[in-house]
Amino acid sequence: MLRVGIVGVSGFTGLELVKLLLHHPWVEIDYLAARSHVGQPLSDVFPSLKNICDNIIEPIDENKCVNLDVVFLALPHGVSMELVCKLFGKVRIIDLSADFRLPKDLYEKWYKPHLCPDLIKEAVYGLPELNRQKIKKASLIANPGCYATASILAVLPFLDIIESDIIIDAKSGVTGAGKTLREDLLFSEIEASFKAYSPASHRHQPEIQNVLSLTEPVNVTFVPHLLPINRGILATVYAKLKSFFDEAFLFEKLQKFYINEPFVRVSKNLPKINNTSGTNYCDVSFALDKENNRLIILSVVDNLLKGASSQALQNMNIMFGLKEEEGLKLKPHYP
Amino acid sequence: MLRVGIVGVSGFTGLELVKLLLHHPWVEIDYLAARSHVGQPLSDVFPSLKNICDNIIEPIDENKCVNLDVVFLALPHGVSMELVCKLFGKVRIIDLSADFRLPKDLYEKWYKPHLCPDLIKEAVYGLPELNRQKIKKASLIANPGCYATASILAVLPFLDIIESDIIIDAKSGVTGAGKTLREDLLFSEIEASFKAYSPASHRHQPEIQNVLSLTEPVNVTFVPHLLPINRGILATVYAKLKSFFDEAFLFEKLQKFYINEPFVRVSKNLPKINNTSGTNYCDVSFALDKENNRLIILSVVDNLLKGASSQALQNMNIMFGLKEEEGLKLKPHYP
Amino acid sequence: MLRVGIVGVSGFTGLELVKLLLHHPWVEIDYLAARSHVGQPLSDVFPSLKNICDNIIEPIDENKCVNLDVVFLALPHGVSMELVCKLFGKVRIIDLSADFRLPKDLYEKWYKPHLCPDLIKEAVYGLPELNRQKIKKASLIANPGCYATASILAVLPFLDIIESDIIIDAKSGVTGAGKTLREDLLFSEIEASFKAYSPASHRHQPEIQNVLSLTEPVNVTFVPHLLPINRGILATVYAKLKSFFDEAFLFEKLQKFYINEPFVRVSKNLPKINNTSGTNYCDVSFALDKENNRLIILSVVDNLLKGASSQALQNMNIMFGLKEEEGLKLKPHYP
Amino acid sequence: MLRVGIVGVSGFTGLELVKLLLHHPWVEIDYLAARSHVGQPLSDVFPSLKNICDNIIEPIDENKCVNLDVVFLALPHGVSMELVCKLFGKVRIIDLSADFRLPKDLYEKWYKPHLCPDLIKEAVYGLPELNRQKIKKASLIANPGCYATASILAVLPFLDIIESDIIIDAKSGVTGAGKTLREDLLFSEIEASFKAYSPASHRHQPEIQNVLSLTEPVNVTFVPHLLPINRGILATVYAKLKSFFDEAFLFEKLQKFYINEPFVRVSKNLPKINNTSGTNYCDVSFALDKENNRLIILSVVDNLLKGASSQALQNMNIMFGLKEEEGLKLKPHYP
Repeated sequence: MLRVGIVGVSGFTGLELVKLLLHHPWVEIDYLAARSHVGQPLSDVFPSLKNICDNIIEPIDENKCVNLDVVFLALPHGVSMELVCKLFGKVRIIDLSADFRLPKDLYEKWYKPHLCPDLIKEAVYGLPELNRQKIKKASLIANPGCYATASILAVLPFLDIIESDIIIDAKSGVTGAGKTLREDLLFSEIEASFKAYSPASHRHQPEIQNVLSLTEPVNVTFVPHLLPINRGILATVYAKLKSFFDEAFLFEKLQKFYINEPFVRVSKNLPKINNTSGTNYCDVSFALDKENNRLIILSVVDNLLKGASSQALQNMNIMFGLKEEEGLKLKPHYP
Repeated sequence: MLRVGIVGVSGFTGLELVKLLLHHPWVEIDYLAARSHVGQPLSDVFPSLKNICDNIIEPIDENKCVNLDVVFLALPHGVSMELVCKLFGKVRIIDLSADFRLPKDLYEKWYKPHLCPDLIKEAVYGLPELNRQKIKKASLIANPGCYATASILAVLPFLDIIESDIIIDAKSGVTGAGKTLREDLLFSEIEASFKAYSPASHRHQPEIQNVLSLTEPVNVTFVPHLLPINRGILATVYAKLKSFFDEAFLFEKLQKFYINEPFVRVSKNLPKINNTSGTNYCDVSFALDKENNRLIILSVVDNLLKGASSQALQNMNIMFGLKEEEGLKLKPHYP
Repeated sequence: MLRVGIVGVSGFTGLELVKLLLHHPWVEIDYLAARSHVGQPLSDVFPSLKNICDNIIEPIDENKCVNLDVVFLALPHGVSMELVCKLFGKVRIIDLSADFRLPKDLYEKWYKPHLCPDLIKEAVYGLPELNRQKIKKASLIANPGCYATASILAVLPFLDIIESDIIIDAKSGVTGAGKTLREDLLFSEIEASFKAYSPASHRHQPEIQNVLSLTEPVNVTFVPHLLPINRGILATVYAKLKSFFDEAFLFEKLQKFYINEPFVRVSKNLPKINNTSGTNYCDVSFALDKENNRLIILSVVDNLLKGASSQALQNMNIMFGLKEEEGLKLKPHYP
Repeated sequence: MLRVGIVGVSGFTGLELVKLLLHHPWVEIDYLAARSHVGQPLSDVFPSLKNICDNIIEPIDENKCVNLDVVFLALPHGVSMELVCKLFGKVRIIDLSADFRLPKDLYEKWYKPHLCPDLIKEAVYGLPELNRQKIKKASLIANPGCYATASILAVLPFLDIIESDIIIDAKSGVTGAGKTLREDLLFSEIEASFKAYSPASHRHQPEIQNVLSLTEPVNVTFVPHLLPINRGILATVYAKLKSFFDEAFLFEKLQKFYINEPFVRVSKNLPKINNTSGTNYCDVSFALDKENNRLIILSVVDNLLKGASSQALQNMNIMFGLKEEEGLKLKPHYP
């Protein structure tokens, strides 16, 4: 049994981790910690967990962490690296924050001065479809952001045949913003509405652009929007094709790319957010705008699962040589 | 392994049964049938099931059913009894319709002439909290309705101390009405709205009244309402107390009543629908209107799970001597 | 032209008042004040008002108020009476708070010590269907609460033929709680959920009970619930009939009661929240539970309009001898 | 007083027209007709209209139409032109369908054979911000589509400085699809979900591309998406700038373009759907992706109002020399 800890259980991604790990056959949860609600049962914070997980929330304590096999950090950006700096090398770490996703310069441009920049190069970007081999041996996983997961999985299969100028118009449910008390997250502001935010200036843009610049640099215009739903991201990606391809070729290319991937579902039907809610799947499809020789790729994930917590668990499975689907055969929420 | 079949997989309760049974460690699904979409993969009807359950939907065939250990019938009222009449005694049956929930006279008053009224007395009303012993040996389970489950579990603990005149004001999500193409179920009609329907004339009223009239007859006024959400029922029950009791006594009484029940959660906090969504739990709490010596009991279930499919699975576990929680440690959907 | 002021324009009822008064042909808005956002254009607080009302929010100043013909107070309970104590007799006041709705003893039991209890008896409870004649001459209107409006208009027509023990199960949209930054009002908590709150202990219960105890005392059990929508209240009222009546008699009685009322719509069809959203209407209907000789009355209002701001305007029209419908022929929001 | 008729009152745009015209000071509604529900009061179809408009729905009769000053046609594509062919020249027509928005060849490519192609050139595309002068004298208005209104008003101010390759990622509420009984429009399918549909193959693409090709041809990639809300469209437009401009220049350019327009609101704040719901406004803003020298324009309209019925009324006002804002000073729905 893997001895597992979760730090940051009072937020949504921490909650999802707890729910997933409770059902994982090779895991025992040894440590649940958070910055707030210390001393309270987790089910006081999340009453849905009553009788499911009434464990007491412990304070954050690095000594507790080093006795584990793996620790998940579901902490805010900036807070997470404080702990990583102390724990690195003493316990394997899966960090759900952005703190180790970007090169130092990019990180500091978009976030704040980095506390342990030397560790950034030690971190493996935890997108299994891209980095499975590196994840196996990683000491520190930088778990991808939700927007980045949906966007990168959409673009990757076509990266060699599209021009380097990529537009990503993404739409996310409100749980992406967590449980913060902000007026713009009140029901009365979200219901029956929709808006873009941070157009061309969102922190996930450098993450996406950096990861996609695998072989040659790409440029990404990224505009996120806020949907009046709780869960799910849909990314609509626009890119010019380098030459002319027909739909059959493109579909075969997409299908081949993900043929062995357990958690990417390729289809000719357009993806819908409620088909992946509750699961670790990313659904990908595309359309071809022939008049403009433009590829339109559509992808959908559950932002809290494949976009965060279940992807973190997928990384854990890979790191510890477990079956990759272990604990991840999840029931879709629909309807 | 139990060989299990589901008849009626193209509806929401059938879908939920499939999702649950796929994860049950002692079950193999041998037969999936429906009246429509025969010959199509189930994942064509429900794209969320792609790669999860691509089994082909078979036609309804009683010969297939009799080779199973148990068959779940997720068919409309009236259709279900046709099959039960043929299958009874040849295979154990869990019927999610209303066809065997009521005595003949009541059934025929609210529904239609019964095809095999002699079998009604053979059926066990599948509410484990009430009938666990009978369920163990049952050949035919009449699985309770969603409104009835929420309402009866609210009232039962207090049945001996309340007067016989009970008011149940119930509110349900729209999946209770299934996938029927009706104008009043369009998004544009439901969103931002709310209404009562069939006040004092809903078919679940006789079911509730009949079950609650265990020792002495009770009278139930029942008014259902339609919530602009997909899942969940909240029942608000009003009943006069026979004499004066304080809240501590009432809470202890409630708690004791369900002390050994794995799927009823008693709390001093008022229940919320999203705390049970995705689970087999019924959450129950109450308030005391001292001025009027009136008890207000509040209960919540997921109408498709404890109100239908996961309760059916709980019945199966009991019938076959399995651990009652097997396959039912479900992750709450929240958030 | 009436010179009108609104104090408390940064909340939802203040906003609705502004939108209504801007279209009223006999009104000029001379004064918009609030406790917060002073010095900002109102359209900064509510961007939907851009180019519609860009007036600057002024500080609260009693000297400004006394130069008006009428002032609307859309302030929180407790704050409002401070201003009323100073303004009474100097300007006609329509107070949307609860401060003058209850007798002193009841007010102080449910709220706090009253600052000017002598003025309570000067206030007229501003429900036109009940108090039209008194409203005409009133110096101070206690504008009814939203739950009270829906509940009282449901019960009034039948008050003489029902028993004195009345149950009101009410359901409201979230704007009833205003724009307060509370975790339980976040989208993630409200969406896909539903709950009761303050059962048998909500502050609107004494208001309803007090008003309905017109000739003989009635007892009201009141349980409010929170709907995942922005606007609207539906009240489901349960009361035993004193003797046997048939539906035709009851419908005629209801219809006659409201025959001359411009803003109560009586129907045999059950009311739906989205039929009154955006309007000053209260829709009322009923069902008869013959088995239990119980009347079930259903009523619907827009909580921010007939339940607050448009009813306040209706009161103004009556106070100043204007046509009662002036400025109140509103377009329903549906769809 | 203008004698006005509406043909097609049983749909959402017809309903909105009725609500608007009832409040227009210079209009009398002389004729309400539809293909269905003939002989019923309109308030039977739309109970929200009870006591507001109980007029009987008449059958469609060209002889009735020719006695009017203007007739609004709120009919499906294909049906509308049948009537236009008969009425043209006998009464001024505002056609809300797509039948006269496109040149013959484009129309027949995307829709069906045209019945009176000669009349297409007589029709004026009723976007006041583009064609105000022509609208004044028009006999036949082709009222713009909802997606086209939002998209074109976003692009027009920048048309001379952007490259001809334009991407429009649009998101609409479900009332855009009307009241059709389709499984994908059921509440259970829409709630908590989101999807794209008809990517690069939607009928509004040729409308947008055709109108924007004013001076030189532009190419439009158009992808619509379905929001889980009733009303509103947000268009996110992506276009490369021909040379480098800063934000101050771009904002001034936008502001100047609409300086005299009563129904376009320009702002540095990003638009939100609920700020325009209920109104005839189009809100426009933009962001500049400096790294890629790409302009991102965002616009919002109420799809049933500025995207259909209130724009039709704006056209009527212009055609008959009335004040353009007459009957269009609408209250925003928010909250």
